[in-house]
Amino acid sequence: MMFFERVAIIGVGLIGGSFSLAAREKKLCGHVVGVGRGAANLKTALERGAVDSIETDMAKALRGANLVLVAAPVAQFEKIFLAMGPDLAPNTLVMDAGSTKRDVVSAARKGLGGKVSRFVPAHPIAGAEHSGAAAANPALFRGRRVVLTPLEENSPQDIDAIDALWSAIGARVSRMTPEQHDGIFATVSHLPHLLAYALVDGVSKRPNSAQLFGYAAGGFRDFTRIASSHPEMWRDISVANRDLLLLELHSYAKNLKAIEAMLENADAASLEKLFAQARAAREKWLNGEYE
Amino acid sequence: MMFFERVAIIGVGLIGGSFSLAAREKKLCGHVVGVGRGAANLKTALERGAVDSIETDMAKALRGANLVLVAAPVAQFEKIFLAMGPDLAPNTLVMDAGSTKRDVVSAARKGLGGKVSRFVPAHPIAGAEHSGAAAANPALFRGRRVVLTPLEENSPQDIDAIDALWSAIGARVSRMTPEQHDGIFATVSHLPHLLAYALVDGVSKRPNSAQLFGYAAGGFRDFTRIASSHPEMWRDISVANRDLLLLELHSYAKNLKAIEAMLENADAASLEKLFAQARAAREKWLNGEYE
Repeated sequence: MMFFERVAIIGVGLIGGSFSLAAREKKLCGHVVGVGRGAANLKTALERGAVDSIETDMAKALRGANLVLVAAPVAQFEKIFLAMGPDLAPNTLVMDAGSTKRDVVSAARKGLGGKVSRFVPAHPIAGAEHSGAAAANPALFRGRRVVLTPLEENSPQDIDAIDALWSAIGARVSRMTPEQHDGIFATVSHLPHLLAYALVDGVSKRPNSAQLFGYAAGGFRDFTRIASSHPEMWRDISVANRDLLLLELHSYAKNLKAIEAMLENADAASLEKLFAQARAAREKWLNGEYE
Repeated sequence: MMFFERVAIIGVGLIGGSFSLAAREKKLCGHVVGVGRGAANLKTALERGAVDSIETDMAKALRGANLVLVAAPVAQFEKIFLAMGPDLAPNTLVMDAGSTKRDVVSAARKGLGGKVSRFVPAHPIAGAEHSGAAAANPALFRGRRVVLTPLEENSPQDIDAIDALWSAIGARVSRMTPEQHDGIFATVSHLPHLLAYALVDGVSKRPNSAQLFGYAAGGFRDFTRIASSHPEMWRDISVANRDLLLLELHSYAKNLKAIEAMLENADAASLEKLFAQARAAREKWLNGEYE
C-alpha cells in the first residue's frame, strides 16, 4: 500500500475531514495540511486532529505534497485548480470528492493544463445532512461506494493508486465515465434532493405552516432528511448538472401527471398496481439484489 | 380510567394489533376478539397474544363488546359499518383508526344510522412501512399524535373516554374537524407518499434500473422509505382524499416548475435561497418549535 508522506486537503468539511481521519487511522498518510475558506472550520479540523496544520497560502500548502484532495463545493473547483496549477509539482497526485464529474473534469483541464494527467476524479457516495469538519467521521466511507471517472490521460498506476487508497479505508470502488456518473446521480441523488427541498419549502410557505409541521410525522421526517443538506453544496451540484437534472425533472413531472390522472379517474386499480410495483422494486433493492 | 371488559378489533394489522397490545399492557381492557379477512394474519395475532380469540361472524364478535375499534383499510369501512349496524348494541362505543376522516364519517353515518352518536372518529399518526399483526408493537403510539374528529352527535363523555384511552397508552391527543384533518394530512403525509412511490416507480422502469438502484445510497433510502408502505392502504387513502390530494399535487407541481425555471436560468442565488430556507424550516421543526 502506498504511503503518502504529505497530503494537502483543499476543503476540510465532512468529506475532506472524514477522509483524513480514515487515512490516518489506517496509517496511509503522514502530515496532513488543511486549506480552506472558513477559519473557524479549519480550527475545528485542527482541534479534532483531522489535520496537522492549516494553511491559507496555496503554494505553501502544495509544497512537498504527494497527494492533494480537493473536497470543496464543486463551483469552487475551477478557481481552486487555477490557483493550484502553477504550484503543483509534476509528481503530485491529485483527486477530488466532487458530487458531479463533467464540470469537475472540465475545471481540472482548464486549471491544471498538462498536469491534468495526474488528476484522478473521484466521487465518494457518502453524503450526510450534517456538514463541516465537526461532523467528520473516520467510518464515513466504510462499505460506501466511491466512483472514479478516470481521464484518458491518467496512467493505470495512478488510477490503481487512488482505487487502492479508497479501498483501504473500506470503500467499494467502481469506475465509469463522467457522463455516466452524472446521469446516474441526477436520477438517484440530485432529483430526490430537489424534490425534498421543494416539499419542505412549499410547506413552510403555507399560511398554516406551523400547524402543518405540527402534524408531520416519521414519514415526513425521513422523506425530507436530505432537505437538511448543505444549501451551497446542492446549489453547485444543481447548477453543474442542470442539463441532466432538467431531464429528470421532466420525466418525474410526467410520472406525477400519470398519477394525477389516476386520482382524477378514481382509478384505484392503477394506483394500487403502481404502489405495489414500487414497493416490490424497493424491497429487491433493500435485499441487495442490485449491489 | 375506564376499563373495557370486552373489545372487538375489526382488522388486526399493525395499528389494531399495536393498540390491543398497548391497551392490555396498561390493563385498559379484558377479552379482545379479533375480526379480519386474512386467516393467517389473525392466527399471527392470536399467537402473539394481541387477541384472545378470533371471529369471522360479525354478530358474534360484537356481542357484549364495550368497545369496537375499526382498523381496516378505509375503503372497507362502509361495508364494515353496514355489517356492524344491525348487531351493534346501543351501549357499545366505537372508534376507528382510519387515515382519512371525511369518508370514514360518511361511511359511519350510512352504516350505523342513529348509533353513529357512539362513534368517535380517530386517527393515530403511527404508520410504519411494515404492516400486519406480525409488526404490531405495544410502544407504537408512545409520544405519537392521535387526532380525534368528533361528530356533533357525540356526547362529551364519549369523546373524553376515547381521548383518555389513547392518552393512557402514551399518545398525544388533539381534536379537529374531518375537513381540517384531511387537508393537513394531504400535505404532510399523503402527498409525500405519492412522491416517493412515483420516484421508485420511475427508477424501476428505466432500462438501466439495476445500475441506478446499484448506486442509490442513504438519501434515496430515507426519501423512499414510505414507498414501502402498504399498497392497498395507500390506494384507499389516495382515492378517499383525492380532491385534496389533487390540490396538493397541483401546488407541488407549481413548486417544481419554479425550480425548473431556476435551473434553466442557472439561477444559483435563487436555488441556494430556496434550499437554505427549506433547511432552516426543517431545523426549526426538528427542534420542536411546532409541537
